[in-house]
Amino acid sequence: MVRPLAVAMSGLMLLGGGAKVAAPVEEPALSYTATGEMKYPEHYREWVYVTSGLGMSYQPKASAGSMGPMFDNVFVNPAAYKAFVATGTWPDKTALVLELRASETKVSIDQHGSSQGAVMGVEVHVKDATLPGGWGFFEFDPDKPAPAKIVERPASCYTCHEAHGAVDTSFVQFYPTLIGIAKEKKTLSAAYLKEMPAATK
Amino acid sequence: MVRPLAVAMSGLMLLGGGAKVAAPVEEPALSYTATGEMKYPEHYREWVYVTSGLGMSYQPKASAGSMGPMFDNVFVNPAAYKAFVATGTWPDKTALVLELRASETKVSIDQHGSSQGAVMGVEVHVKDATLPGGWGFFEFDPDKPAPAKIVERPASCYTCHEAHGAVDTSFVQFYPTLIGIAKEKKTLSAAYLKEMPAATK
Repeated sequence: MVRPLAVAMSGLMLLGGGAKVAAPVEEPALSYTATGEMKYPEHYREWVYVTSGLGMSYQPKASAGSMGPMFDNVFVNPAAYKAFVATGTWPDKTALVLELRASETKVSIDQHGSSQGAVMGVEVHVKDATLPGGWGFFEFDPDKPAPAKIVERPASCYTCHEAHGAVDTSFVQFYPTLIGIAKEKKTLSAAYLKEMPAATK
Repeated sequence: MVRPLAVAMSGLMLLGGGAKVAAPVEEPALSYTATGEMKYPEHYREWVYVTSGLGMSYQPKASAGSMGPMFDNVFVNPAAYKAFVATGTWPDKTALVLELRASETKVSIDQHGSSQGAVMGVEVHVKDATLPGGWGFFEFDPDKPAPAKIVERPASCYTCHEAHGAVDTSFVQFYPTLIGIAKEKKTLSAAYLKEMPAATK
């Protein structure tokens, strides 16, 4: 199986001179065990970054515990990102990863504000037409990234995303490079437009 | 030039069946005008994300102005990221992009903390063996991303990065997935080891 690869690489190299190269054939973003558990998405840090927040909470009471406020970083698999840029919505098998990290202060020469520390949690929101509601949540323990079972419905993650997500139950309103695309492509959800009527202006 | 591409893609497809596909041939991360100005790196948001901070400042006085604290997001071109993971340091032509974004509060249903708003600045730190000191800084105006001239030495960005950067004048101490690799590969800078003797333990 080495020979076809060598041919392929030569073919790509021939393009040279600043020509656009072909997109690679992408492997599936996620994989599952034989019993349907999602395997830990090891390479999500190499996916496309969509945003970060610090200390965000949708509850009236701040959720910061003894660890202080946490950073949340969100990543999406590259194929889904490209589809969103083209269409304003997510294709089937989209995988959004929410990574929670401790915030740290005065690291090295930093005198103010917060920088990022250890991973405190990893959650995946996957679009899957075979699931009730079309999306599923999976929560991983970053200290022991074993395969995770789906979060069963009913659960607040589903109801909150369905009631407030700007696009297809996802929180695109917090993704600054994508919300404008959704507005332009008119893919904002009915729930979001009702809650945020100014969003279309 | 279409034919070699078709051959290349067939070659890649033949691997199929879950085999690892070849990495694509990457285009240069950066390009320059005929007069040596750096062109705005339009696709940096699709590069590899390394970290974010909020309100960070290396000065005794916090730098937050009337806009409040800013988020900083850092991206690196994929080829340089892969080389760092393999070697613990940056190859020539590494491009690190620092994106500054406004922080916003109470966006949509968020009740606490901060989410990200508009781009307030884009700075590139490029490793280039043809430059004095081996690295150059370029600052772009995100409202009008015209080509940028190099920041001339002497300037505080150079002296601060050279005095405090954990790896090769870059602030890897703030990149949580990379600092451990530098420690393991023993690529931490002499300046950093002197300042942070505990970093090797």
